[in-house]
Amino acid sequence: MKALVFHGPGSKAWEDVADPRIQRPTDAIVRIDTTTICGTDLHILKGDVPTVQEGRVLGHEGVGTITAVGAGVQRLAVGDRVIVSCITACGMCEYCRRGLFSHCLADEGAPGLGWVLGHLIDGTQAEQVRIPFADSSLHKVPEGVEDAAAVMLSDILPTGFEIGVRNGRVSPGDVVAVVGAGPVGLAAVMTSVLAGPSRVIAVDLDAHRLDQALRFGASDVVDAGDPDWYDQVMARTDGLGVDVAIEAVGVPDTFTMCTRIVRPGGHVANVGVHGRPVELALQELWIKDVTLTTGLVSTSTTPMLLRLVEQHKLAAAAFATHTFALDHIDEAYEVFSHAAETKALKVLLTR
Amino acid sequence: MKALVFHGPGSKAWEDVADPRIQRPTDAIVRIDTTTICGTDLHILKGDVPTVQEGRVLGHEGVGTITAVGAGVQRLAVGDRVIVSCITACGMCEYCRRGLFSHCLADEGAPGLGWVLGHLIDGTQAEQVRIPFADSSLHKVPEGVEDAAAVMLSDILPTGFEIGVRNGRVSPGDVVAVVGAGPVGLAAVMTSVLAGPSRVIAVDLDAHRLDQALRFGASDVVDAGDPDWYDQVMARTDGLGVDVAIEAVGVPDTFTMCTRIVRPGGHVANVGVHGRPVELALQELWIKDVTLTTGLVSTSTTPMLLRLVEQHKLAAAAFATHTFALDHIDEAYEVFSHAAETKALKVLLTR
Repeated sequence: MKALVFHGPGSKAWEDVADPRIQRPTDAIVRIDTTTICGTDLHILKGDVPTVQEGRVLGHEGVGTITAVGAGVQRLAVGDRVIVSCITACGMCEYCRRGLFSHCLADEGAPGLGWVLGHLIDGTQAEQVRIPFADSSLHKVPEGVEDAAAVMLSDILPTGFEIGVRNGRVSPGDVVAVVGAGPVGLAAVMTSVLAGPSRVIAVDLDAHRLDQALRFGASDVVDAGDPDWYDQVMARTDGLGVDVAIEAVGVPDTFTMCTRIVRPGGHVANVGVHGRPVELALQELWIKDVTLTTGLVSTSTTPMLLRLVEQHKLAAAAFATHTFALDHIDEAYEVFSHAAETKALKVLLTR
Repeated sequence: MKALVFHGPGSKAWEDVADPRIQRPTDAIVRIDTTTICGTDLHILKGDVPTVQEGRVLGHEGVGTITAVGAGVQRLAVGDRVIVSCITACGMCEYCRRGLFSHCLADEGAPGLGWVLGHLIDGTQAEQVRIPFADSSLHKVPEGVEDAAAVMLSDILPTGFEIGVRNGRVSPGDVVAVVGAGPVGLAAVMTSVLAGPSRVIAVDLDAHRLDQALRFGASDVVDAGDPDWYDQVMARTDGLGVDVAIEAVGVPDTFTMCTRIVRPGGHVANVGVHGRPVELALQELWIKDVTLTTGLVSTSTTPMLLRLVEQHKLAAAAFATHTFALDHIDEAYEVFSHAAETKALKVLLTR
C-alpha cells in the first residue's frame, strides 16, 4: 500500500510500504476513506516529538472501513464504517476503567497505549491502518453522518470538549475565554456552547480566525495583538475575570494570558501542546482559588459527541475547508502548514 | 486595651491601643480568651505582606467571648463563646453564596473581605477584637470543646482540609503525599485521613516534624534531604506516582516536587503561601492530565470540622505545643519563630 512515511525532521514521502496485517486477536485493519492532518503532525515534522522514529507512518485521525478483524474482536465486523480514535486503548486496565484511555497501561510492544498512532505505531495517513484493541479504539459511524463530520471525532472535537470545556468545568452562565482559534480552539468554542455559557470570547491574533470563531459560536472576539486586549476581555466580564480560560495554542504567553484573565475561583484549562516550561505567577495565584488542568484527550466522550453530530447539534463538518485526494497529501500539508494564508482549518484527504 | 501592634518590618510591640467598638450593626466585639501565631504573621513581620500598614494589630486566629453585638446581629449574643474565623465574610454576595468566603465582595472600607483580620483591619493578638459580619464570621463553640482545640478551627484545620484535602480531591484508596509537615501540612495529614486514603506520605527536611507527621496520621515519611527522596516516594506507589500531592511549604522547590511525584490523572493542591513565581514544566505536564489548585481557605467547612472535633474524631488540641499568657506574646513569637529548635507547632496565648 501507499502511506506517508516520516524520514526524520523536515522529511516525509508518500511511498510504498508493506500492507498492515492482523498481529493480535484484538486488532482490526481499516481501509482509510478519509483522513486529515493535525498540528501535531507538523510538530513531528519539525522534530519536536523525538519519540517518533524514522520510517513511521504518520497520522492519528481517520474514518474508514474495516477489512479484517482478529478472532478476539467482538463489537466490530468486516465492512463496518468506523472512526479511528486518536487514542488507542485496551479498555480494561486501571486507567481505562477510570475513562483515562490516554493513559492506557496495556503493553503493545511499548509501555502503555494512548496516543500511539502515527507516533509509536504506524498511523492513518495511509491507505490502510492496523488498529490494536479495535473494540475500544474504533467507533461505528451511524448512517447519515458524512466522513467530513465523522473525522472531526477522531481528535479535535473530543479534545476541545474534554480538555477545554469539561476540564474547565464550563457551567451555565459562565463567561468563557478561548485563547487560540485554530481547529482545536474552535472545537472548544463550539462545544463550550453545549454547556450554556453567557459569553464565549475568542482571543487570537488572526482576524480570519476570529471571524471563524463567531461562526463556530463565539459571542465576542478580542484581537490578542491589541495593546488593550486584557481590558477588552475584562470589559466582557463583571470586572473580576472570566470563569474559564481555555488555552489552545501551546506557548508560554498564551498560558500566562489565561492565568491573568481568570477570576478568583475560576478554571484555566490547558489544551495546547507545550514544548517549553512556563513561569507560573504563584505569588499572585496562591490566594486566587484557581484550578489549572492539563490533559491529552481521553476520548471517553466520543460516543456522546458522535450522537450530537448525528442529531445535527454539532456542525462538525464545518471544520473542513479543503479536500484533496489521498495521494495529493504533500499538497495538503502545504495548504495546512500555511493556514494564515490559505485560511485552512481542517484539510481532508479522501480515498 | 493591650494589643500586638505592627510597626513596620521587624518591629512590633505589645502596647495600649483604643478599645474596639461596634461600627456597623453587623459587628460584634469579642474578648480574646485564646489566640495563636501563624506563619503568615512571621511573613508580615519580615515585610513580605506590604498591604499590612504600620499600626495594624496582628493576628487572625482566636477563641473568645462576645462582649457586644450590633443591632443587626441575629445568631449571636453577648456571652457566647466563639471561634474567630480567619476569614471575615458577609455571607450574602456572589462569592459567599458559592462558599468562597475568602473572596467576599462586601465593602468594609476596603474592596472585599476575606482575610482581613490582622491584615487590613485590626486582628486577634489583642485583648479584644471587632469582627465585621459577626453572624457569618464567628462560630459558636460547643460545650466540651476546649480552647486549645477550638482555636485550630480558626485557620489551620480548614486550610489543610479545604485547600489540601478537598481541592486535592483525596478519595478512598488514594496515595497522598504532603510536602511540608509544619502546622498546616500536619493539618492536611490529619484531615486527609478522613477521606480514607491507602497511604499518607509526609515529606519534610526536619526529622522531628516527620515524627510528628506519624503522630498526626501519616503512614509513611520521607526525608526530603535524602538524595533518593523521589525514589522513596515512588516506591510507596505503584510506580506511577501519588494520586494527590499537597504542597504545604510555599517555595518553588517543594511545588516542583509535587508536580514531579503526581501520577497521570492526579492532583497537586497548593496550600503554601508563595512569594515568587515557579517554573511549571508544562512541556511534561500538558499530556499528564493533572489538576493543579490554589486557594486561600474559604472556611466553608469550619462547622463540619468543629463537629468532628466535638465528636473527638479530630484531635485538634494536639497541635498546641506551648502556652503563654497573652502579655508574654513576645516570648511566644520567639518560640514559634525558632520552631526547628523549640519543636513548636502551635503556640497558644491565653487570657
